[in-house]
Order: sequence, then structure tokens, then C-alpha cells
Amino acid sequence: MEKIVASIITIGDELLIGQVVDTNSAWMGQELNRNGIWVSHRTAVGDIRGDIWQALDTEFSRSRLILITGGLGPTADDITKPVLCDYFGGKLVVDEDALDNVKKIFTRLQRPLIARNLQQAEVPDNCTVIPNRRGTAPGMWFEKEGRIFVSMPGVPHEMKGMMTDEVIPRIRSLFQLPFIAHRTLLTAGIGESFLAEHIKTFEDALPASIRLAYLPNYGMVRLRLTIRGTDPVEATAALQSRFEDLKSLVAEWMVTDEDIPIQEAVGRLLKQRGQTLGTAESCTGGYIAHLITSIPGASSYFKGSIVSYANEIKTNLLHVNPGTLAAEGAVSESTVEAMVRGALGQLGTDYVIATSGIMGPDGGSPEKPVGTVWIAVGNRRNILAQKFSFRFDRARNIELTATNALNQLRKFILSDK
Amino acid sequence: MEKIVASIITIGDELLIGQVVDTNSAWMGQELNRNGIWVSHRTAVGDIRGDIWQALDTEFSRSRLILITGGLGPTADDITKPVLCDYFGGKLVVDEDALDNVKKIFTRLQRPLIARNLQQAEVPDNCTVIPNRRGTAPGMWFEKEGRIFVSMPGVPHEMKGMMTDEVIPRIRSLFQLPFIAHRTLLTAGIGESFLAEHIKTFEDALPASIRLAYLPNYGMVRLRLTIRGTDPVEATAALQSRFEDLKSLVAEWMVTDEDIPIQEAVGRLLKQRGQTLGTAESCTGGYIAHLITSIPGASSYFKGSIVSYANEIKTNLLHVNPGTLAAEGAVSESTVEAMVRGALGQLGTDYVIATSGIMGPDGGSPEKPVGTVWIAVGNRRNILAQKFSFRFDRARNIELTATNALNQLRKFILSDK
Repeated sequence: MEKIVASIITIGDELLIGQVVDTNSAWMGQELNRNGIWVSHRTAVGDIRGDIWQALDTEFSRSRLILITGGLGPTADDITKPVLCDYFGGKLVVDEDALDNVKKIFTRLQRPLIARNLQQAEVPDNCTVIPNRRGTAPGMWFEKEGRIFVSMPGVPHEMKGMMTDEVIPRIRSLFQLPFIAHRTLLTAGIGESFLAEHIKTFEDALPASIRLAYLPNYGMVRLRLTIRGTDPVEATAALQSRFEDLKSLVAEWMVTDEDIPIQEAVGRLLKQRGQTLGTAESCTGGYIAHLITSIPGASSYFKGSIVSYANEIKTNLLHVNPGTLAAEGAVSESTVEAMVRGALGQLGTDYVIATSGIMGPDGGSPEKPVGTVWIAVGNRRNILAQKFSFRFDRARNIELTATNALNQLRKFILSDK
Repeated sequence: MEKIVASIITIGDELLIGQVVDTNSAWMGQELNRNGIWVSHRTAVGDIRGDIWQALDTEFSRSRLILITGGLGPTADDITKPVLCDYFGGKLVVDEDALDNVKKIFTRLQRPLIARNLQQAEVPDNCTVIPNRRGTAPGMWFEKEGRIFVSMPGVPHEMKGMMTDEVIPRIRSLFQLPFIAHRTLLTAGIGESFLAEHIKTFEDALPASIRLAYLPNYGMVRLRLTIRGTDPVEATAALQSRFEDLKSLVAEWMVTDEDIPIQEAVGRLLKQRGQTLGTAESCTGGYIAHLITSIPGASSYFKGSIVSYANEIKTNLLHVNPGTLAAEGAVSESTVEAMVRGALGQLGTDYVIATSGIMGPDGGSPEKPVGTVWIAVGNRRNILAQKFSFRFDRARNIELTATNALNQLRKFILSDK
């Protein structure tokens, strides 16, 4: 059993200048962790030879495994490959398999091949080439003084494919890894401090092998228990026992005891009951429908949505009374209730979520400031409307409205006999 | 004029384990860059005293300005504050303004205050406290041997508010910063290599003060020119001149010459023309409507959407002929054309975008594999349908369908006399 510590180096000016959000590191961290490897450091550097070289030196000194992404593109700003080649003292040669791959991709895309693309098939002669089935840039696996360096493209789906198909299996075959397991649950409707206070005795009594983490996000808090052990059976049982204790403690606020988003938890609930959902969205503009349909298999419980951004869509398609809109406004209890009734009729679903609010930055008034939102959920027998007062910015208001609406629906379904 | 190099340290196990995607670093990188400060390194470490200490040492040795986020929450896993306190040799004391702030927030939320929350108002006695108007954890500004360390909460909107209101103005008042400017344009329909080949002569002739970057994303490529100079007027003129050359070179594929997403470019086009848009979405499930309504002011050109995920919504609300669905399937040219016609009638907009496809991972067949998508755009006079064959995963297929649909509409509007 070895404790393998890993580092991630991401290369690219676009990361430092912030034009691109680094989603690769999070994904790689998850994969490594799942396989019992602890990522201790993550570093981003620009497309600058000296900085890349220094990062390689630094991570060489502290990690056994160094995963590198980015800087393998065909353009002049991409210099990762020549720097790695020099760092490990190799020279660039054409790899025939990588060349075939480039040719195949261009044939399939029906695009002419240019010299710049053919250069993608050049690799240092002292690395093991990792095939890229999703793009033209091959991966590179170097070994030096017991360290492993793996360079992969920065394009997320290319990197992910390479990790899953090649890198993780090779790592697993090389090391005897410790057993690491997580259990995660999601709560809504309680703040992080209160949750911490509520489960303090539980947290203080945790053994050293188990860690508890609080992950707050958009009005919800995820709790994660992590165990590190040697015997999988024993560790799994110990983790499970603590997790059951935790679940009982937070039962009142628990959305799901799996590491899934709330839209997936709601989807499972509907699927179990053989029921269907539709949405009537004003201020969320289709975002709730998007969250629901981002889950594979959503078609078995989600039928559709009427996004009624303009008032005329509310009256024409959802049959909201124009008098209601005139008297109480689009952001009102009566309007969201009418939207639910209208959508139940039009979409023919068991449940409907309706939203109407002022997302900002403009459109607020003294009576209805930015962040004022009405959410209604209902079925043919009953409708429940609630008012929320968010603040913050537009994107956050849309996100908070969506997660609160999904939670409101979840509670409504559970109380619906 | 000083060249200030900055580093960003993000603290939290959740970043290394990949449970949270680090969007803060990208945002901070943008803000610093806009103000003439070059971020040379970004590091993420876990909630581990030794690792935080070492990261502080490392960045102390290479940067003048070190921005730190994360680890300031009220729970036991958050240790950034005591570590910083020790690192700078201070002791924790209660800050009265921060205490008032905590009390005010809890009064507004109508929640009882507990000791754990009051501890949020404790700060090292050797830092300048930075007020947090959006949360309970104050920021901390330390100075040591000419270096500035700023610690901020990891909650994005709290960090952003603190940066904008306090940190950036303080930095600007302390340093004479170089002038940095960017111009960015967005292209669609041409690959990165071809673009690079097409503008090679232009790129090779750029002066040392101007850098060109290629930022590919979901079938589109953003090109960014960056100038670093001393005289703002001179530098702006030099940048503008090169940018105009670049625009002429890529005119055929250019979506916009501003650093905005395609949905904003389409929105501006509609606004200029006083025209309106609606969507009829099957496979994108409301995502196109969400992208459009994520832009403030979208209500002046976007009326709404019918998300027809189930076939019965396609027939009942969009009046797609059931015979068409039976004979040609939901993913077909006839269906998306009928969806456009149906939505033009129901939503009463000038233009409609319709999508239908197989997003995966399931639902593919030999004739219509995962990634098969039909997109139609149209108005009362004309409808243009196109078939696409994406591959990859569900999230990427949804994203690619949305961006291609928006680009197809943009071209349709421009050719619509």
C-alpha cells in the first residue's frame, strides 16, 4: 500500500487572465480521489517557458504523479510539448499512430490537412505516447527518478477520454493504492453555521480516519464524509455507520443522501412515482427546464415548459387573466398561481413549477426590489406559492430561484398523499 | 510605472478533491489584468496548515501582490484565519465593525446569533480589516516587506463585492500600473488551425508589445489581442489599428468584435432591428432560452419559448403533424420546420429557433446516432433547417447545439432583407 500524492499543473495564459474557467482540475481531482490518490497542489502557469520549467521542478520535488493539461494546440502560443521535450532531454519525432489519427480525423471532418496539423503528431522520443481518440494532440507519459509526468490536451472532453481510457488504468496497474471512500448528502433550508452547531457533537466524535466537509452552494449545504483506510470492507462499514448517524441528525433538511444535484433528486422522486413535471418560467427563462433536462433520462418524467418571458405569452398561452397582471403585476402570488393552472392544462403534467421575479440589475421598484421572486408549485388539487427576497446579481438570482423552486416542488411531492 | 506581478492562492480541500469548480480565480485574473497587473501563478492547496504556510512562503518569494480566497467559513475545517494570524505574527481580536456587520446580517435574516457566528468578527490585530457587505467573514489586508497579502472569503459574490468595492481601489491608489488593453473578437465556423494558418502573416508581423491568443470553445474560436504599454493613447491607437486588420482578415467568420458571448451578439442584432425572438426547444430543453435570458435587458427582444420535450407537446402546442412524427421521427427536417411554424404562431415573434436531436448517452440508433441534431431557424417568409452530427457527451452536445443554433439565426437575420 502506497500513499501517492499527486499535483496538477494547468498551462495557459487564458487561465491566468481568466478568460477560461478551469473545470479540468476539478474533474481530475475527483477522478484521482476516487482512485485513492490525494491531490495536494494545483498550479496554473502561463505559456512561458521559464514558468513551466519551474512548475515542473517544484512539483517534481513534492509529488509522485504530476498531471499536466494545456498548451498542446497547433498554434504558436502553445509551447508545452517543446518545453517537456527539453525538460526530459528528448527530441521530437513523428509518431506514426498519432499521424494516422490526425489523418483519420481530417478525413472524417472532410477538411484539408495542413503542415500545422501534421506537427500535432510529433512527440518527444523519450515518452510513451497516449492515444487521443477525440482530437489530434496525443498525450505524453514521462517517467523520471520514480516520478510520473503525464501531459494531456486542455480540451476537456479530450482530456477526460484520455484519463478514463488510458491514464487511470495505467496508474492503477502501477501502484497499490489506499482505499478512499466518500458519502455525501445534500441539505436545503439551513445555514452552514446552524448545521455545524447542530452536528457539533457528531463531528467532534469522528475518528481521525474520517473527515467531514461543509460545501455550501446557492442556499444549500452539501455534507461530505471521507474515510481513508486499508481494508475496503471495514472502512466502508465504518463510513456507512457514521453516515447513517449523520442522516438521522439532518433528516429534517436532507434533500438526498447521494452526491447528485437537486434536479436529479427530484427526477428520481418523480420516476419512482411514475409522475410527470412541466414548468412555466418567467424570470428563470428556461433555466429550470434546462437543469432538469441536463440529467440523462429526464424524458421519462419531464414533458416540457412554457417560458413566458413576455406578459402576452402569460395571457395567451398560460391563460393568466390580463386583469390580474394589470392589478397585481407579473411578479405576484396570483400570477404564479395562474401560471401553474395554465401550464397544468397546456402541458398535461402531474406537477408544474412556475416562477416570476425581478432578476436585476434593472426592473426593480421600491415595492418590488431586485431579487423579489414568487415561486408556485402545484398539481390539480393544490397550489403552493411562496415569496422570496434574494439580493445579489442576476446570475445568482436565477440560480437561487431555480434551486428553491426545485426544493419547494420536492417538499410538495413528499407531502402529496 | 511599476510592473506588478500577482499570485492567487485558493484554499480548500473541496477544490483539490474537485467537488467545487474554481470560478473565483478566473474572475480575479480578469480584474487584475484589466488593471494592468499580471497574474503569474495560481495555486490551490487544501485546508492543511503546512501546505498553506508553504504556499504563502512560495508566493512571497515571487510576487508583490498575493490574493487569497477560501477557508474563512465558520466551521472547523476552515483554518485560513488562524494560519494567517500566526504567519504574520498577530493575535486574534474582535473587530467592532465586523461584529456589527454580523449582527446586522442575522437581524435581517431573522436568525438567532450563535458563538460560532460571532467568531467571524475576530481578526488578526496586525491586519487592515476589509468590510464584507455581503456576508459575515471580513477580509484581511496584510503588508510585509513590500508584499501585500489579501485574504477574502471563497463565496464568489462576497469575494467579488470585496474586490470591486475595496481591494482594487486600494491597489490602484498604491501602485502606478502599466497600461494593458485587450480587444477580442469571436469567430464561428472555422477551426483553430485554419484560422491560425489564415492569419499567420498578420501574427508573425505583430510587434513585441502585442500578443495574440486563440481561445477555442464549443466550435467557436475567440481571438484576443493584448497590448502592454506606457502611454494609454498611443497603445490604444496601436492596438486598434492591428485589431482592424484582424477584423478584415476574419470578416467571413466573425460573430462579434466585442468580448461578449454569442447570445449577447444576437440580442444586440435583434434590438437594433426592433425584432423579437422565441424558441421551440426539444433536445436543448430550454438551454437556448436560458442563454438568451441570462443577458440583462433580454425582455426587449425575447418573448418566450415552448420547450417541447415530449412529442405530445410538439403536436398539442406546436401543431407538429403526428403523421410527420410517426413517419420521419422527432429528429428530422420536417419536424424542426414544423416546430418553427408552430412557434411563430404561438409566440408571435419575428424569428424562431427550433431544435430536435439525440443528446445521449442513450437514445441513439444506427440511422440516428447520439449527436444527431436538426436545427431550424425562420420567420414568416422563410425557414432554414440544417443537420449536425456532434459526438461527445450530453452536456457538450447541448452546448454545441445551442451555440450553432444561435449562429445559424445570426446568419439568417443578416441575410434577411
